[in-house]
Amino acid sequence: MSTGNPQVEPIIDYLLESSGKMLRPRLLYLAASPYPHDPLMVRDMGVAVELIHLASLVHDDVIDQALTRRGQESINSRYNNKTSVLTGDLLFATAFNLINQHPFPQVMDQITRTIQLMCQGEIKQLSLAFNLDVSEEEYYEKSYSKTACLFACSCRVGAWISSMPEKYASLLEEYGLYLGYAYQIIDDILDLVADSQALGKPAGNDLKEGNITLPIIYALKTKEYGSLLRKILAGETGQLDTRELKNILLDSGAIEYARSISRQFLQKALASLELFPVSPAIKEMKNIALFIMEEYYARLSYDNEGELVKVVN
Amino acid sequence: MSTGNPQVEPIIDYLLESSGKMLRPRLLYLAASPYPHDPLMVRDMGVAVELIHLASLVHDDVIDQALTRRGQESINSRYNNKTSVLTGDLLFATAFNLINQHPFPQVMDQITRTIQLMCQGEIKQLSLAFNLDVSEEEYYEKSYSKTACLFACSCRVGAWISSMPEKYASLLEEYGLYLGYAYQIIDDILDLVADSQALGKPAGNDLKEGNITLPIIYALKTKEYGSLLRKILAGETGQLDTRELKNILLDSGAIEYARSISRQFLQKALASLELFPVSPAIKEMKNIALFIMEEYYARLSYDNEGELVKVVN
Repeated sequence: MSTGNPQVEPIIDYLLESSGKMLRPRLLYLAASPYPHDPLMVRDMGVAVELIHLASLVHDDVIDQALTRRGQESINSRYNNKTSVLTGDLLFATAFNLINQHPFPQVMDQITRTIQLMCQGEIKQLSLAFNLDVSEEEYYEKSYSKTACLFACSCRVGAWISSMPEKYASLLEEYGLYLGYAYQIIDDILDLVADSQALGKPAGNDLKEGNITLPIIYALKTKEYGSLLRKILAGETGQLDTRELKNILLDSGAIEYARSISRQFLQKALASLELFPVSPAIKEMKNIALFIMEEYYARLSYDNEGELVKVVN
Repeated sequence: MSTGNPQVEPIIDYLLESSGKMLRPRLLYLAASPYPHDPLMVRDMGVAVELIHLASLVHDDVIDQALTRRGQESINSRYNNKTSVLTGDLLFATAFNLINQHPFPQVMDQITRTIQLMCQGEIKQLSLAFNLDVSEEEYYEKSYSKTACLFACSCRVGAWISSMPEKYASLLEEYGLYLGYAYQIIDDILDLVADSQALGKPAGNDLKEGNITLPIIYALKTKEYGSLLRKILAGETGQLDTRELKNILLDSGAIEYARSISRQFLQKALASLELFPVSPAIKEMKNIALFIMEEYYARLSYDNEGELVKVVN
């Protein structure tokens, strides 16, 4: 990532200080592992998918006017919107340049199409912001473009750049897809019930942005809490009482429902791995699915609200 | 560009309604013309460089909070910043997908590196905003990353995808480079002395954004007007009187100086074409250099200020 540009270098360094979980390159690496592959190509493609993810985060933070990201100030907060837009573009261009170092047109095609889907999906979602009648199906569509498609793409690319037979490659793509849905649902639950410190980014941001997620969609449909929640979210009851909101989501069974759906996706992800012979990579892919659930508990344990921790344990 | 997405389609349609001058794809097409080439590849690469240019305009408009572009409302004004950031990303991804349809790693490398240079240059420029001590050299650096490098890249790519010998390809790249500098200087002059209607975008935007361009740099260095202009630009004389500013730029010889530099670049551009045998494509490339000067006069003739028109004719 070295640019030799004294104005650009500190921004990139700052961005890379908090490196996140590196889930996408990990998936790519693991998907390439079971069959013979060129480690340099795997490394570069892994860096590229992480840069693409990073670029989309930097651009999302402009979009959402988020002040923190991964536990530190966001680029647009530390610098400004201009710098964020340009840094995101620079990261995209760098990713494509890196992918192109290993001419593999199928991979470039897959990754550019994935970014197209991500952008189109996000643009579509803008028209659904603050719409309390958004359906569960529309929620899954959004989760696909936001997270699942890049998870699936990372696995697919990893498989492709190894000599894995197509049958197995499709299964790994499926694994990434289901894992992505599960991950996004848990991320959305945490945004509603965890606190900002545990998340490393502002909690409650989704509602502020009008992003209506699975627990809300479920709770809005319950007889007991639906109409009250609708009034609260429409601002008819004054400022949002986050304590009251959490209680509604817990008491209506909405958190439990979303958690069960997430678990179903994780089980589908695990099922996609069943045909594979045991190997360290496949074992780690299974562990990642389990880790996502553990991570969920770990973050909630930071929460100070006793009732909540009790309910989710 | 068809996406089949009912939320995305109208944005792209709107964006393509005002198609601009299509200078970059024209340069690419002309650079490919003298030697045998695949017309489909030329078409796709031409579309790609225009999409990249369009993406950078859409992102610039977020950055500059510009309200109009090419004579109509900008995307961020008609829609919002979120839509603009995502639409720009979608245009970039679509361009790369299109380039990748004709696997030609050299071209992908050239174009991604050009975008990296453009972004890095713009980030560097942000640190120079409102700096009245910016040097002429820094101004040329900025013009390179803003305009000249994509002009040069368009010519280079056009030459590469034909069977043009390297010696000629370098000359066309040089032509694009010098043309780009000339074009940017004229664009910067017009921003200072033409009116918004003639430009199809808000005039005077550069100074608002702290973008100190060649005429200003020159006038600031003159004995007669330098210190007055510095006071005006530092806001020490109250609100900016654009009439007074224009007079200073004219009377100090700053407009004339910038025009002469632009003309020198155009002459260098024309000189790069001298070695080529006469052909319709080379003739048109010469005409484009002349057209840039004509365009300049045409836009100024819309201006209501009699003195100004007199001076530049």
